[in-house]
Amino acid sequence: MPSSKTAQVFVPGHVTGLFTVHRREDPARTGSRGAGLTLSDGAEVTVEREGSPGLSVNAESTTVESVEAVLAELEVEPAIAVETDLPLGAGFGLSGSMALGTALGANLVYGLGYTENELIRIAHVADVAAGTGLGDVVAAARGGAPIRLEPGAPPHGSLDGIPETARVEYLTFGGLSTPEVLKERPHRISEAGERGLEALLEQPTLRQFMAVSRTFATDVGLLTDEIEAVLETVRNHDGQASMAMLGRTVFALGTDLSDAGYAPQVARIHPAGAIIR
Amino acid sequence: MPSSKTAQVFVPGHVTGLFTVHRREDPARTGSRGAGLTLSDGAEVTVEREGSPGLSVNAESTTVESVEAVLAELEVEPAIAVETDLPLGAGFGLSGSMALGTALGANLVYGLGYTENELIRIAHVADVAAGTGLGDVVAAARGGAPIRLEPGAPPHGSLDGIPETARVEYLTFGGLSTPEVLKERPHRISEAGERGLEALLEQPTLRQFMAVSRTFATDVGLLTDEIEAVLETVRNHDGQASMAMLGRTVFALGTDLSDAGYAPQVARIHPAGAIIR
Repeated sequence: MPSSKTAQVFVPGHVTGLFTVHRREDPARTGSRGAGLTLSDGAEVTVEREGSPGLSVNAESTTVESVEAVLAELEVEPAIAVETDLPLGAGFGLSGSMALGTALGANLVYGLGYTENELIRIAHVADVAAGTGLGDVVAAARGGAPIRLEPGAPPHGSLDGIPETARVEYLTFGGLSTPEVLKERPHRISEAGERGLEALLEQPTLRQFMAVSRTFATDVGLLTDEIEAVLETVRNHDGQASMAMLGRTVFALGTDLSDAGYAPQVARIHPAGAIIR
Repeated sequence: MPSSKTAQVFVPGHVTGLFTVHRREDPARTGSRGAGLTLSDGAEVTVEREGSPGLSVNAESTTVESVEAVLAELEVEPAIAVETDLPLGAGFGLSGSMALGTALGANLVYGLGYTENELIRIAHVADVAAGTGLGDVVAAARGGAPIRLEPGAPPHGSLDGIPETARVEYLTFGGLSTPEVLKERPHRISEAGERGLEALLEQPTLRQFMAVSRTFATDVGLLTDEIEAVLETVRNHDGQASMAMLGRTVFALGTDLSDAGYAPQVARIHPAGAIIR
């Protein structure tokens, strides 16, 4: 179809339950193995060719490094408006979702002629370079409950998935600095991530995903007192919750957070990757 | 989540525009390269653990070889009810969609513990063994406008996509026998398919997809008079239509068929692969 002046793309958010860190010379090969859930809450990205260049998130003008890196790579300067219910830096992979939505939208409005894999790669490289994500872009591009088998963007990375769906509840207390956490303890993270991924692949169910995510969060030592208290309360109500990597966010399946007396945000596992409207 | 007694899965239909034929000893490596469109019309598959075993399609009891092969591999005997607006054997990949929906649904209701890639592989192998499809399962599992870069099921096959969406119109005149056509002219098909795929990858847009599909249909010599007449009429109205591989079905984007005076079925490119309800 001919390029039009405006494109709208929905990209799901992505909550990581466990992951490993793989740094390579080539940012397209840099990434993580692990598993997470994509969410029906995400980023609704509108890209306009003929607007005043820049980015707004929920109508507030701002800059996001991953988005800027995508635009620099594509050599275009559109107006980008993102609407989202998700907070930045709280473990929802929002930087990656915005980067991917920007890449897909800009490709459409400028008629750039990239394939989907090429745009995923550009967004992944941007998210990695910004230090804001290692696997959120490829996960959000896939949808469902992605298992990242091999790190990196297409054609290097490879994905599988847990073939189930569920209601997802989450509570957010704020952000963690992703780059700092990753710098501090990559080996501890990767060791715990490999153990968890192996256990998940032996039993690739959502129930097992929650269990290995919970173990991972404890093993890597990222639980704050505030989050640990919520996990404990949920467990006392026979539920299972874990922590979004990396953010001060708790997530659970079904009604496990509300059953424990919390008033969570409610989403579902998103059945699709990015959706061009 | 615990296995439940009933699962419902939607699997999009898939219209192939061009393809190649790759036969290998291993059916998981057998398949095709090529490109197509997944459709918002597809198979709504309900799998029940405690029903009387067997398959119904639109409430009529029947047998479908690809579905039987999936059940034999999984060693289960559920009741399966498929609702679909699409005809079998008319180029919508319905055998593959039903096989994939059966695999995903049975995994859920029996708690079989397969990953998504494993279920895609089982459905692909079943569709290949039945002789009803070479790439429909992996395409339907992906969604969007899939480009099949490498033949076969995960982890062998690999996919990309055209990052666009569109309204799709189609007209069906009935079936073609897939196995017979494939037996007759595999080399002619693969040569035309490789040429078309190369041209599509140089310019991965829906407009180019329609053009290379149209050329492919002519090159492989499968156009019937009836279909050629529709394609010609659409072209006379400045539109572009092509033929679904393999069926007596014409498809077009936007309003190209209705603009030419036809009363087509209307769908959209499906943004997701299989959706677990």
